[in-house]
Amino acid sequence: MLKEKVRENIKKYALFTKDETVILGVSGGPDSVAMLYLLKELSPELKIKLHIAHFDHGLRKDSGKDREFVENLALKLKIPFTYLRKGIEKVNRRGSIEEIARNERLKFFFDLADKLKAQKIALAHNLDDQAETVLMRILRGTGLYGLSAISPKRKILRYEVVRPLIEIKRSEIEAFLRKRKLNFRRDYTNFQDLYFRNRIRNKLMPLLEKKYNSNIKEILSNTAQSLSYDYDYLLRAAERFLKINQGALNLKKVERLHPAILRLILRLKFAEISGNMRRLTFKHVEELEDLIFNRPLNSIVSLPKGILALKKRAKLVFRHK
Amino acid sequence: MLKEKVRENIKKYALFTKDETVILGVSGGPDSVAMLYLLKELSPELKIKLHIAHFDHGLRKDSGKDREFVENLALKLKIPFTYLRKGIEKVNRRGSIEEIARNERLKFFFDLADKLKAQKIALAHNLDDQAETVLMRILRGTGLYGLSAISPKRKILRYEVVRPLIEIKRSEIEAFLRKRKLNFRRDYTNFQDLYFRNRIRNKLMPLLEKKYNSNIKEILSNTAQSLSYDYDYLLRAAERFLKINQGALNLKKVERLHPAILRLILRLKFAEISGNMRRLTFKHVEELEDLIFNRPLNSIVSLPKGILALKKRAKLVFRHK
Repeated sequence: MLKEKVRENIKKYALFTKDETVILGVSGGPDSVAMLYLLKELSPELKIKLHIAHFDHGLRKDSGKDREFVENLALKLKIPFTYLRKGIEKVNRRGSIEEIARNERLKFFFDLADKLKAQKIALAHNLDDQAETVLMRILRGTGLYGLSAISPKRKILRYEVVRPLIEIKRSEIEAFLRKRKLNFRRDYTNFQDLYFRNRIRNKLMPLLEKKYNSNIKEILSNTAQSLSYDYDYLLRAAERFLKINQGALNLKKVERLHPAILRLILRLKFAEISGNMRRLTFKHVEELEDLIFNRPLNSIVSLPKGILALKKRAKLVFRHK
Repeated sequence: MLKEKVRENIKKYALFTKDETVILGVSGGPDSVAMLYLLKELSPELKIKLHIAHFDHGLRKDSGKDREFVENLALKLKIPFTYLRKGIEKVNRRGSIEEIARNERLKFFFDLADKLKAQKIALAHNLDDQAETVLMRILRGTGLYGLSAISPKRKILRYEVVRPLIEIKRSEIEAFLRKRKLNFRRDYTNFQDLYFRNRIRNKLMPLLEKKYNSNIKEILSNTAQSLSYDYDYLLRAAERFLKINQGALNLKKVERLHPAILRLILRLKFAEISGNMRRLTFKHVEELEDLIFNRPLNSIVSLPKGILALKKRAKLVFRHK
């Protein structure tokens, strides 16, 4: 039974703590509606308080209807509800519109968390999302960071983002909604690289499932889960180094690092100044290594999002153009 | 130019050391013939001595012709040549026939290395092999170990296996052979899960290349390379632990380990007793974790290749059935 499975996952990953307030990101789509009902039913035994958050990005004309739908659900289930309507425009912004919307949505959740003195945000990503994300990243090229994909639990700043449905298949969620006769919004906007993701979802994944491995989704999800532990271990090592060595990177010190840790530190330094690791490719990292080990002083490497890496004497400096 | 590229890779990964003897695994197929000519031409500047090794597995009727072909090449190029003919039979053996043949071939190379007081063995895997291997492992399920796939340089026991062509595409090798008008054996046996690999090579990879990412092979190869550094870092941490804690695993100690390291240690312990990590799946490792953390004393988990894990008081013991 789905509820039983979700309860087990919550236990396995220790997603919730007694007496805390949990902000549920509810778009109105099938996944978030299922998550809402499941957590509502599990909340007495988990002893958690729920709060529904809905972000209205205004990207579609009728996005107001999603908001109405979620607001009505909140009323019906007697759960406090907060929404933010914020038009997203691409003008003068860095990154894709999806990335901006995703960041704005997270920012809204975090601001709301501050207001409610909460730390936990529950999002409704499922196993199919996980598998599709891993496959997309494999096809586009990525490292351990990208392959660990969507964690059941990830700390972002001082907040904790949890995904209680991350090991649940889309088909199980749909069966649950059907069985309970629950409504949801069908054409809610999916923010993640819609065109490419849809091709993966509708063409490549079914092909792989049929011709190569009928368990491909679980396989990709397991791989991602296993790699997320590996990534966490490396991340801790890299963060320990950065905590002791703040500011510009000391060349003598970074030269002695294991290449896995060096590469991660270069990514973290890029993220520190640019907001996140996105768009920094394998080739960029290789070029940075070449800068450190082989190029003369005062050499410069140009990175995405208008970031420069400069080799000054004894130091490697990252800064905006 | 191909020779230039191979020279660079040899330098980048420090594949060879001055004055050493290098055993070349030459099957007679296009990759190993190209490697042979390239290393022959580079050997004066690298100051390495070459020795050709050919393993005749007797799996095909005319495998003797491959041997003759390679022997003639060795004569022509004035390189010492050693071969071993050893019939492989499945009777009373563990593992697939490909796995057995692969292991026997490696064993032959290692024995020859001992005889020649050499440590280095060069194999001719190329970038396409790398990409196909990664994709195969992704489709079948794997962890960091499987994804790091084929390393340019890997220590096995006291030997070092190097792959100077691992970043060279099959098409580049074919172009080189054509241009130089070099012969090779066409239907040399490829030992790696032939049926599945051929479907990946002939169907899936071209589809991904055409419809999803024209650079998919390089992308997969880069991912594997990057992950092999990550794996190496974790492996060192796990091996440090095992060096200090020999014999059966102390439960108190392993419970405190980071899950990434714990999982790797469980894999290494399984490999220690069974020969390698193959066939130990994600589910097996999860079950071992459950054994450690949740199950009562004297519980047993049954693993592949007739291995058992027993929870004794204070200890986790791996042994044959």
